[in-house]
Amino acid sequence: MWFSTSITIISFLLAINFLSNVQSQTCSGNPTDHCDTEALMSTYKLHYFNGRGRAEVSRLIFAAAGQKFEDIRYESSQWPSHKSEMPLGQMPVLEFDGIKLPQSLSIARFLAKQFNLAGKDNLEQAKVDTVVDTMVDGMAKFGPIRREVDEVKRQADMQKFLVDELPKHMQNLEILANAYSNGGLFFVGNHLTWCDLFVYDMLENILHVDSSFLSRYSWLQRNRQEVEQQPNIAAYLKSRSQTSF
Amino acid sequence: MWFSTSITIISFLLAINFLSNVQSQTCSGNPTDHCDTEALMSTYKLHYFNGRGRAEVSRLIFAAAGQKFEDIRYESSQWPSHKSEMPLGQMPVLEFDGIKLPQSLSIARFLAKQFNLAGKDNLEQAKVDTVVDTMVDGMAKFGPIRREVDEVKRQADMQKFLVDELPKHMQNLEILANAYSNGGLFFVGNHLTWCDLFVYDMLENILHVDSSFLSRYSWLQRNRQEVEQQPNIAAYLKSRSQTSF
Repeated sequence: MWFSTSITIISFLLAINFLSNVQSQTCSGNPTDHCDTEALMSTYKLHYFNGRGRAEVSRLIFAAAGQKFEDIRYESSQWPSHKSEMPLGQMPVLEFDGIKLPQSLSIARFLAKQFNLAGKDNLEQAKVDTVVDTMVDGMAKFGPIRREVDEVKRQADMQKFLVDELPKHMQNLEILANAYSNGGLFFVGNHLTWCDLFVYDMLENILHVDSSFLSRYSWLQRNRQEVEQQPNIAAYLKSRSQTSF
Repeated sequence: MWFSTSITIISFLLAINFLSNVQSQTCSGNPTDHCDTEALMSTYKLHYFNGRGRAEVSRLIFAAAGQKFEDIRYESSQWPSHKSEMPLGQMPVLEFDGIKLPQSLSIARFLAKQFNLAGKDNLEQAKVDTVVDTMVDGMAKFGPIRREVDEVKRQADMQKFLVDELPKHMQNLEILANAYSNGGLFFVGNHLTWCDLFVYDMLENILHVDSSFLSRYSWLQRNRQEVEQQPNIAAYLKSRSQTSF
């Protein structure tokens, strides 16, 4: 009887410890914890210009997660009167439960962790980040060329970018996919993460300039198709605003 | 008796559930979980040139965490015969339990999460990331100027950078510190994170060019002193290799 009572008390204490452990979990960015409900019930406002630009990867993350958000878009003429409302006088800015976060990639990574699209653990998250950073490297010269106002120079620079610069970065992306995808059609761990959405969005800009370049990179092409076929993404792409950038 | 036995069985099941829950935890990048021992017992090899460069922030993270790692440094003459060993033919590369990760910021973020220097939860991690990205913005034009071979052009461009470009970014860093530091001397949440180490390392490059510029940014100056006074960092700074970059 003494033994049984002791076991009961010890077991009770362990059980109480277990339950309090569950209740004290908070939304940490670890996709295996139980914060999904909290993340989904929070309020998200995304401030940006009326274009895809640097905000679109976050919109794609919201779409993939099936998460409602306030998509606040400013026309260029409205921007001067709102600039001072943004922490660094620039956009995108995410307003999350009243806190304002600037920097497009930080915003996207934060949202991806909220909605389990950042990688299942720290190592997967690092692999996802390497894909994102490699895509960023690939786009470093693209933006300035696109903004070049001298039409002749812009066309010459763009041609040079497509022939001399881009292939190296596309090959790098395929090398990472080969190393991290587990043989699947998503970059990391055989499941959708935000690096698939980021690459999808960035490559769209290049496809507007050269609609066929991706045919030389069969894995990237199939990854793109796989992203487009995700039901939430397909629905979003069909319904999203058509904008000039 | 029936009631007591049932309670015992239920309590036992809950206790077993609790214990298996603890044992199945993996190192997720969430600093509140119990992966510290695992992270500390893993093997880390950092491959880079014999310089601070893009690897130094990771070395500072290892130092702050008191974590041993293999600091593999290549002289320029050795690099061609090792280039093909790196996933993207570039460094730094972190070898973690046999897996090779490229991209300096992805490596640093991964290590910071391993050693509880990335922010306590997803929102803090996002704030840390915004500081890092804002520092990256500030350094975007610095690297190319430093590598300019025309001495006269380099000096003129550097002067222009220091006067016209840098102040905006330094002010942006202080704005973020004001918003995220909770009134303390670290950028986020009143405790050391890897963004303090990253800013410390980046500003060192600018201080080599203009040793006094930081006197105009009192918070940044005090943050720098605070970082330098961390015992593990102080010991590392005293003992590290003196290299030309």
